Amino acid sequence: MTQTAKPGAGTTAAESATAAAPRKKPVRKHRAGQLPGRQDWSSWPHYQAAEAGFRGYWYPVCFSSQVGEKPRAVTLLGEKLFLIRDNGEVYGMKDRCPHRGVPLSCGEKNAPGTVSCVYHGWTFDLKTGDLVAALTDGPQSPICGKVRQPTYDVEERLGMVWVYIGDGEEPAPLDEHLPEELVSNPGIVGHRIQPRQGNWRFACENGYDEGHAKYLHRRALWRMFKPMPAWNTTRIVQRGRWIYRVQEEQFWEGDYPGVGRWPKLAWYQARPPRDTGRQNVGNTASHREVDPVIATQDFPGFASVTMPGILRIVYPNFIHYEWYVPVDEDNHLYVGALVEFRKGLRTLPFYAKYLGAVRWLFHGQFSGQDKWMVEVTDAPPEKLYRPDESLLKWRRLAEDVTEERVERLRTLGLAPTGQDD
Amino acid sequence: MTQTAKPGAGTTAAESATAAAPRKKPVRKHRAGQLPGRQDWSSWPHYQAAEAGFRGYWYPVCFSSQVGEKPRAVTLLGEKLFLIRDNGEVYGMKDRCPHRGVPLSCGEKNAPGTVSCVYHGWTFDLKTGDLVAALTDGPQSPICGKVRQPTYDVEERLGMVWVYIGDGEEPAPLDEHLPEELVSNPGIVGHRIQPRQGNWRFACENGYDEGHAKYLHRRALWRMFKPMPAWNTTRIVQRGRWIYRVQEEQFWEGDYPGVGRWPKLAWYQARPPRDTGRQNVGNTASHREVDPVIATQDFPGFASVTMPGILRIVYPNFIHYEWYVPVDEDNHLYVGALVEFRKGLRTLPFYAKYLGAVRWLFHGQFSGQDKWMVEVTDAPPEKLYRPDESLLKWRRLAEDVTEERVERLRTLGLAPTGQDD
Amino acid sequence: MTQTAKPGAGTTAAESATAAAPRKKPVRKHRAGQLPGRQDWSSWPHYQAAEAGFRGYWYPVCFSSQVGEKPRAVTLLGEKLFLIRDNGEVYGMKDRCPHRGVPLSCGEKNAPGTVSCVYHGWTFDLKTGDLVAALTDGPQSPICGKVRQPTYDVEERLGMVWVYIGDGEEPAPLDEHLPEELVSNPGIVGHRIQPRQGNWRFACENGYDEGHAKYLHRRALWRMFKPMPAWNTTRIVQRGRWIYRVQEEQFWEGDYPGVGRWPKLAWYQARPPRDTGRQNVGNTASHREVDPVIATQDFPGFASVTMPGILRIVYPNFIHYEWYVPVDEDNHLYVGALVEFRKGLRTLPFYAKYLGAVRWLFHGQFSGQDKWMVEVTDAPPEKLYRPDESLLKWRRLAEDVTEERVERLRTLGLAPTGQDD
Repeated sequence: MTQTAKPGAGTTAAESATAAAPRKKPVRKHRAGQLPGRQDWSSWPHYQAAEAGFRGYWYPVCFSSQVGEKPRAVTLLGEKLFLIRDNGEVYGMKDRCPHRGVPLSCGEKNAPGTVSCVYHGWTFDLKTGDLVAALTDGPQSPICGKVRQPTYDVEERLGMVWVYIGDGEEPAPLDEHLPEELVSNPGIVGHRIQPRQGNWRFACENGYDEGHAKYLHRRALWRMFKPMPAWNTTRIVQRGRWIYRVQEEQFWEGDYPGVGRWPKLAWYQARPPRDTGRQNVGNTASHREVDPVIATQDFPGFASVTMPGILRIVYPNFIHYEWYVPVDEDNHLYVGALVEFRKGLRTLPFYAKYLGAVRWLFHGQFSGQDKWMVEVTDAPPEKLYRPDESLLKWRRLAEDVTEERVERLRTLGLAPTGQDD
Repeated sequence: MTQTAKPGAGTTAAESATAAAPRKKPVRKHRAGQLPGRQDWSSWPHYQAAEAGFRGYWYPVCFSSQVGEKPRAVTLLGEKLFLIRDNGEVYGMKDRCPHRGVPLSCGEKNAPGTVSCVYHGWTFDLKTGDLVAALTDGPQSPICGKVRQPTYDVEERLGMVWVYIGDGEEPAPLDEHLPEELVSNPGIVGHRIQPRQGNWRFACENGYDEGHAKYLHRRALWRMFKPMPAWNTTRIVQRGRWIYRVQEEQFWEGDYPGVGRWPKLAWYQARPPRDTGRQNVGNTASHREVDPVIATQDFPGFASVTMPGILRIVYPNFIHYEWYVPVDEDNHLYVGALVEFRKGLRTLPFYAKYLGAVRWLFHGQFSGQDKWMVEVTDAPPEKLYRPDESLLKWRRLAEDVTEERVERLRTLGLAPTGQDD
Repeated sequence: MTQTAKPGAGTTAAESATAAAPRKKPVRKHRAGQLPGRQDWSSWPHYQAAEAGFRGYWYPVCFSSQVGEKPRAVTLLGEKLFLIRDNGEVYGMKDRCPHRGVPLSCGEKNAPGTVSCVYHGWTFDLKTGDLVAALTDGPQSPICGKVRQPTYDVEERLGMVWVYIGDGEEPAPLDEHLPEELVSNPGIVGHRIQPRQGNWRFACENGYDEGHAKYLHRRALWRMFKPMPAWNTTRIVQRGRWIYRVQEEQFWEGDYPGVGRWPKLAWYQARPPRDTGRQNVGNTASHREVDPVIATQDFPGFASVTMPGILRIVYPNFIHYEWYVPVDEDNHLYVGALVEFRKGLRTLPFYAKYLGAVRWLFHGQFSGQDKWMVEVTDAPPEKLYRPDESLLKWRRLAEDVTEERVERLRTLGLAPTGQDD
């Protein structure tokens, strides 16, 4: 959609005068009624409706170490549940006691395998959700057996607790939702979970976004001594569950009309390399040996994304993952992990480097800039440009995969949940 | 209403499998759409509508010592008024100056028997509400005599200020709304007024509730050395304005399926008494001499409630009262009083004991636990159990008494106010 | 509209009894449903609709010294824009980047005459609003030339930055919206800009209000030693763009029915002067020589107001101006200026006096009392009295002037913006 200056008939003469005339008569367009570009996301109805997330997936919600004998309240895709550990395993259950609506997460475990509500001692079996006792109404309380509290599928993996949010269908095994290389090649050495404001889709689109890193992060310490390319050309390639950004050509600087030479390198920054050939692996502008597990994957591109919103950035010797876990329409969890695939003692140097510098530089500052943008992004309306092809491909992927799931549910006689579940 | 697991046809087989199968396949019921139990309070339409309280009653709003020569703003049943003392008496008036909507409670008393608005000096007679002067428009201001500010009926009793909220009818004397034994047998020695979050009806239902004390409060210091019964059987008896909980049998412990023995007494707790016979008076599990005034009342049960939400808990030598005063739909005042009926010097030991221990233990901790539950109660929907008979009887009482009042108003040609007055 | 006591048929007898009967039966009117007076501002439809201000005017928004090379975000009449200085001039532009809705005020100037969005480096020309570069998509980015960001007319005057908010019409020169005497007679020596809560119309009405100063401010230090008149008679006179309050007679005290003598002067207050004749200039109850520029204006009255809400209070040797700049429906900027017309060194003593005492006394306390009232005013409904003639004349002026503007816009083929622009 083209934005033209047409405030009204009476100013046409003024417009042509503006180009030559002095400052005094700018083109007046402070009429805010019509914002340019795409007005909504109706081209992707499932994506548009997924304000609080896509159902039918496993999501990481906290660290395993954070779940113990006391209930831990969690909000996920707008649903309030709690987690609790019993005999080594983690269980999940709806957080609202059916008696009077008090959160069960205020309660405690009085006997193994159960949780009791703090108010009247209604006691639920953690495995089945059955009300097995009402402690304040005696052992033969008639209410027992007449109430069942909804439970959640829960797994532990990679040092975190994962919860499945669905519509009554049997969940796929967690393995099918993890990045394939993580299933058989363990080795996480550093992760981070941070609650963040902003809709999860802005966080995901920011993560997979082609353009912003070279501008928004250009002065982050992480990039301080290495120049960023000014821009590059890209194509999007799908392989299996993932869509990849394949970098074609990198351009380190250019002469922009109206701006001049860009970027302007500081004296302490290294000059860009002569070789601007294709780079599939990493973005660190150096040539270290590539980890064999990573090399085996033969990734088409270093940045990729899959449903329900998992970003994978491949470096020569480690991979960085991000999950954008929807808490509700206005909040999400940022779950980031740097994974090295080397085993045993060989993880120690990396871990030390991670804690000492990488974590601070990357997770602290880079990620803080992303967090800031996600908080202030306000679209649609939006006016997309050439590099946003990655974003459009991501939405198309999300739309198609979700349509398939809706079909599957209908076959099972289940109805997908609307946003107001 | 029975809660059954029926997420959809496709999981029936899974359900029967669940009982025997290991943890891996819990009954999946994280579909939140349909909460079990009663969905609303439409069985009691007046009670359901009384979110901001029942009109036609006197309510305690503050201590007499808190009202002096300066206006004191008060919100009661959603109405904003102010109180002010003049020549020893307390007056009440609507808090919004009719000129430009500024609160009259920002004003002051420039002449006896009047209050002047802070903005333009509009001056109202405290008894009648008449605008007697507009100080900024001279002694012959034409607006005088053309404006009358609504006033409120106010009384002082038991060291507190009481305000009547009605619909234009002549208020009944305050005596008719006080517990009968308080009218002719004074002796308050300790009260407390505390603003609290949460709807007043949750506070009242919590107060009269049969079940929760034995579980929620079981580890409060107040009960530290004396065991609580695990549960008891009860019947509800009406006498005059009040409905009473009459304890039939007390049970100190039992074997609960799925839980085991309950409760689990700590080593420092005394063993329960052998005698589990009926107890009408108090709940302190001891046998002190009963105060003669209290004995004379011959209460059918130690816990009773009456409109508009007054709780009475009878001990051998004092009575504890609670008023749940609606401020608005989301807030109420907790007004508690411990009353001893002995006179003169004989109140001193009790008062000392009250301040020193009883107040802290009871009002501080017990009451703090109740306050917590009232803040997090979220009903309807609600799934009631056997001990909730007390709650149902209270709602029925409220409904019937209110229906009588509505009839009376119609006879007087007055219309009861809706919640949006 | 007369406020009569008629709660219902059944209380008529009670009403006549009230006058003679003792306190026990006040006239009961705590039925809040019907507030007295005018229920809305439908007599002035343009004024009623102007919750977020009148469009078609220049408004002061900040000090010139506050705008530099970094963008400064401003909200004016509900519109979000930013200001930035480039090559000595100040430019204004809509604050929302059309790409993804991120505020352009988070960005920076990478090249002269432009601003770049912080996210993807979309770069806009400050004069025209044209998107001249997308730094992250190379020098030949196809999006250039397809997007134009709305810009705002901006001027600097009197040490402040002024922005024009219109509907597409050519703005009148700023001079036509300034008080005439300021255009050719400079000399500001002290101003203040303060964000305030409350609707701008309450602030303007408070400023021009006849009555309140003599009551609300009577004990402000500014008036401590000089008595305020109790009330006066006034007539409103229009001259050019302005309407003036012309004081006819001043009255220093009176005997008010129901109140007694008013005001009650403290012993340290000077007795009022015998001369209660007309006073056109200032309100300081003294007779200093009048500044020649001020004398030349021959103001009909010392207090005047004009569109879009500019108050002018004339003192013998300086003039105090107030602009009530609408930020949005709930907030405004208080812009106050004390202007002396003497030049050069002769401004120094005044400036010193201003900083030392006048600023603190006047702007600090007086203005603080006005600010308080503007925060708590809640009209309509409103019941106006005789001195509110000034307020009615102001609304009539606003209504008529706005109607003329609407006609002019229609002639130009432009549509006035509704409140939801």
